[in-house]
Amino acid sequence: MPVLKQDHGMSEEVRPGLTRRIIYTGNLMTAVLDFTDGPWEDAEPPHSHPHLQTSYVAAGEIIFYCEGEPEQHLKAGDMFAAPSGKKHTIKLLSKTARLVDSFNPLREEFIP
Amino acid sequence: MPVLKQDHGMSEEVRPGLTRRIIYTGNLMTAVLDFTDGPWEDAEPPHSHPHLQTSYVAAGEIIFYCEGEPEQHLKAGDMFAAPSGKKHTIKLLSKTARLVDSFNPLREEFIP
Repeated sequence: MPVLKQDHGMSEEVRPGLTRRIIYTGNLMTAVLDFTDGPWEDAEPPHSHPHLQTSYVAAGEIIFYCEGEPEQHLKAGDMFAAPSGKKHTIKLLSKTARLVDSFNPLREEFIP
Repeated sequence: MPVLKQDHGMSEEVRPGLTRRIIYTGNLMTAVLDFTDGPWEDAEPPHSHPHLQTSYVAAGEIIFYCEGEPEQHLKAGDMFAAPSGKKHTIKLLSKTARLVDSFNPLREEFIP
């Protein structure tokens, strides 16, 4: 699939307050995550995966936590990276937020 | 480098009208490209690279051309993928645009 338009309605509801759209080629995937249930009192539990991750904050404000690093207050236009196997998480500071997360290899569990 | 904040001023001027910021971990890179010289009369010459590419249109409007595929009019919120080795290019329809391009493996030539 060479393009995924926002108005194609290809979002998957991951849980109430979070939808995800994905595009991928070969071993590279980008996922657009739309959060609508902020702000959060607490961060999500930290998680890790062998996949490399780079992320772009397209909208909203978050705190990004990554194992061994100081916490980072990020807003629209900022970017972060999560190395393979490093525990990381976010806390939503705004009501809504959009993250654009890229992964290598594919997050197979995201593919419907 | 776990985060790259927009206001850190780490943009590189690729050419007049185009700046780029990058973040990467392992073999995964994301580059934020800010175009300010649109709209263009013509598309850029098509190019290809062995790297896989997925892109998110963060702002603006473009036409995305990919070898063997119909041209696609994309706007903020849309995504595209460029498979390894496939010729592709864009034409800017708006004055400014922001693309968030992810690559595997790294575009070594983007690293200062």
